[in-house]
Amino acid sequence: MGEWSEIDTPAVLVDLDVVQRNIQRFQTYATTNGLAVRPHIKTHKLPKIAEMQFDAGAVGITCQKVSEAEAMVAGSDRITDVLITYNILGAGKLAHLRALAGKIMLRVVADSEPVVAGLSGAFADADKPLGVFVECDTGAHRCGVSSPEAARDLALIIDRLPGLTFAGLMTYPPVGGAEAVQDFMTRAKALIEAEGLSVETITSGGSPDMFRAHKPSVVTEHRPGTYVYNDRSLVVRGVCGYDDCALTVLATVVSVPAPDRAIIDAGSKVLTSDLLGLTGHGHVLDRPDLSIDQLSEEHGRIVSEGPIGLSVGDKLQIVPNHACVVTNMVDGVHVLRAGEVVGYWPVPARGKVV
Amino acid sequence: MGEWSEIDTPAVLVDLDVVQRNIQRFQTYATTNGLAVRPHIKTHKLPKIAEMQFDAGAVGITCQKVSEAEAMVAGSDRITDVLITYNILGAGKLAHLRALAGKIMLRVVADSEPVVAGLSGAFADADKPLGVFVECDTGAHRCGVSSPEAARDLALIIDRLPGLTFAGLMTYPPVGGAEAVQDFMTRAKALIEAEGLSVETITSGGSPDMFRAHKPSVVTEHRPGTYVYNDRSLVVRGVCGYDDCALTVLATVVSVPAPDRAIIDAGSKVLTSDLLGLTGHGHVLDRPDLSIDQLSEEHGRIVSEGPIGLSVGDKLQIVPNHACVVTNMVDGVHVLRAGEVVGYWPVPARGKVV
Repeated sequence: MGEWSEIDTPAVLVDLDVVQRNIQRFQTYATTNGLAVRPHIKTHKLPKIAEMQFDAGAVGITCQKVSEAEAMVAGSDRITDVLITYNILGAGKLAHLRALAGKIMLRVVADSEPVVAGLSGAFADADKPLGVFVECDTGAHRCGVSSPEAARDLALIIDRLPGLTFAGLMTYPPVGGAEAVQDFMTRAKALIEAEGLSVETITSGGSPDMFRAHKPSVVTEHRPGTYVYNDRSLVVRGVCGYDDCALTVLATVVSVPAPDRAIIDAGSKVLTSDLLGLTGHGHVLDRPDLSIDQLSEEHGRIVSEGPIGLSVGDKLQIVPNHACVVTNMVDGVHVLRAGEVVGYWPVPARGKVV
Repeated sequence: MGEWSEIDTPAVLVDLDVVQRNIQRFQTYATTNGLAVRPHIKTHKLPKIAEMQFDAGAVGITCQKVSEAEAMVAGSDRITDVLITYNILGAGKLAHLRALAGKIMLRVVADSEPVVAGLSGAFADADKPLGVFVECDTGAHRCGVSSPEAARDLALIIDRLPGLTFAGLMTYPPVGGAEAVQDFMTRAKALIEAEGLSVETITSGGSPDMFRAHKPSVVTEHRPGTYVYNDRSLVVRGVCGYDDCALTVLATVVSVPAPDRAIIDAGSKVLTSDLLGLTGHGHVLDRPDLSIDQLSEEHGRIVSEGPIGLSVGDKLQIVPNHACVVTNMVDGVHVLRAGEVVGYWPVPARGKVV
């Protein structure tokens, strides 16, 4: 179809061959280890890539917002099983949740009584109950109940409230948290089962530790997000190489004002300011000697130790620190097969902040 | 019109009373000091706020991208004078530039021969020449020619090339750069005038130093952006107070998992990861004891030294570190007058990355 040189920059490129390889690699690992895969679509926000994940064997998808789930479901009739890993609160969102739950198999998480009370209020007279997982804090210190006992107590409340059914346990662990997940979930499962409830699914997430996802053997399902594209943060952590990075930002050198400095047209509006603990704002492919030391909204500043060797008009391909947040910045991505641009895909679940 | 409580969160609120006061304050200062005001619309991306700036006395607007200028011009027939402070390169963008220049008074900047050659190629047979400013690096080390002599040389090239006319000098100085601007621009102006060219406009920018914009007396025009909303970065720099911050993010507490920790539904997808050199990700209005110590895409983590005093469902209003980048994250903003929600304005120039 098109030539790269015809793409207006900055632009986000997604190499579908690499995507396919990344999906397959994790699916094979998970299947081998008896884990169900429920990819988090925050990374791609594209119904077509969700379909590629289903083709490989994914059991459903994970979304973070009702609005994101709505956009995904509207984009593919194969998206019929969605877990929203977020506390849904407020009349507006609950109405959307209820409407969407009428169309597909939809489940959510909760970590407090006020949240489950709201869910129950919205689903008390629904045709089918809403499945609710208890979110557990296994060390990330974000959301989640803080002890197995609290997980049991909330599971019992969910079980008793009208319109709801207890679906299992969910966590988003910190990197290196396998042992803590195993301890927390094993104890919580035992406490809940002792009350006569079954814990069918224990779902965990995260890409940095994805190939150790089977280590907490109590876990039944994994929700990787970034793995589909990979990014500089995962390369630096040793999880993959730059050849495994499917998403890149194509940028043009717009100024070479000094021998050791160049400016590209990709700034924080496309690469974002997300450092993910790294130094610099991305990796320039084939130029490991360069670093992107500063971003403003529309400018990226590249510096080098020696002569920079770039000219105005040159194109560069950049692996961002964090792929997921880049996807959210653009209305569409250019997709590649065998190195050729084969299409432009709008990103329907972009910008779903509510 | 609406109640705050009916707004789904996270949401961006813009207080138009504060906007109007901010616009008027800087305009009065600039008029008093003989400076023209050409606001940078990157902060609001809203044609209606550009009109408020015109009402106060702005001579035109500044945009950073052709696509941004197109969206603004499409949104108001009063936007007839636009300066794009960016090196425009490539056939696609040049064609858009040429088309837009046929409709309004449009000018651009350049800092190298390849850029002006491209502009000349696109405008050689245009009805009217394109005005081109020479961008000068007065210490920010982003784009710009690095010496007054180089500014003169590029001005002469612009003057000789078909389709172009030399419009003046432009800079985006670092904070505290008044003296360097004065020295650079005075020398460049003299060198250019010695060649028989006039330097009608010398345009500078930036909000942190905006009330010292007259200090480099050679400057004739200022391009403030953030001043229209202000933000935490400007409060910390002592330029304004939180009462002068027109843009806030309304968020809901979705979890209070520990006595000293709460989670809100505003993460990097709305607040962005832009630190602007600060610690923490925004200021919670009326709660200076809280800090937002960590963001993930959909979660903001709030911590406190003592008891956090928040409950699930509470609403918080947050002044972001950097207002401009927040505007770009949302499809629309809720506007307030006298503390009441009076409308929802789509942000037409959002996401114009190309």
